[in-house]
Amino acid sequence: MTTCIFCRIAAREIPSEKVGENDGAFAFLDIKPLTKGHVLVIPKQHAERFADMPRDSALAVMELAQEMVVRQSRRLGAPGVTIAVNDGRAAGQEVMHVHVHLVPRAEGDGHGPIHHLFQEHAKLKDGELGEIRAKLTGK
Amino acid sequence: MTTCIFCRIAAREIPSEKVGENDGAFAFLDIKPLTKGHVLVIPKQHAERFADMPRDSALAVMELAQEMVVRQSRRLGAPGVTIAVNDGRAAGQEVMHVHVHLVPRAEGDGHGPIHHLFQEHAKLKDGELGEIRAKLTGK
Repeated sequence: MTTCIFCRIAAREIPSEKVGENDGAFAFLDIKPLTKGHVLVIPKQHAERFADMPRDSALAVMELAQEMVVRQSRRLGAPGVTIAVNDGRAAGQEVMHVHVHLVPRAEGDGHGPIHHLFQEHAKLKDGELGEIRAKLTGK
Repeated sequence: MTTCIFCRIAAREIPSEKVGENDGAFAFLDIKPLTKGHVLVIPKQHAERFADMPRDSALAVMELAQEMVVRQSRRLGAPGVTIAVNDGRAAGQEVMHVHVHLVPRAEGDGHGPIHHLFQEHAKLKDGELGEIRAKLTGK
């Protein structure tokens, strides 16, 4: 039996406040919500990191996330949503099963864009963007 | 001619540091990177909000985002990535064409998980999670 808590939630072995599901993905309320209506969307098939999801899982997660954001708008009246994945421990990932946070936002709630996580932005030398592009593309 | 800056970047009418592309999506370096190697992934077909993307666009964006995260890991040595969408003006969206931020992270870089955007977390009454579930699901 798996010990991954999110695998067990998706398998209904551990109860959760389920809000949606499709063939490959499962959505439930975060029990420590950042704002009211904070949803987590996970692939049913275990994957540790974002890029580990096979195509079917990734598509299922994307579709369910879109469906949930529409519901957060229509049923909870959220005019915006912060959609985010802490991918890897260096990015703050704690449960090592991919999960997409869908955090409802309100006008003027003061939390800002994800840019506000980064007090100091990168300082680039002239031409450095091009160097980074070359590294990323191998060209 | 469209005036959407991201449509024009995807159409190569405006130059960018392109780092990847597939049938439905385009990836390029953010010119104001939060950290070095900060990539934006956009659908080629205009969509204002995350849930507005038709299935093909959404899948293309997901696949290209996964590919870019792998490259940020392998080619830039990033052990983690903050993956995020500011969806809607209330969430800080400024360019009204969906874009996924892929921000490379380093161990101990001090920026934290996306949770750090939210200084005050939601305070729920007993049973309120269940009430929110009922609202979201209509059950």
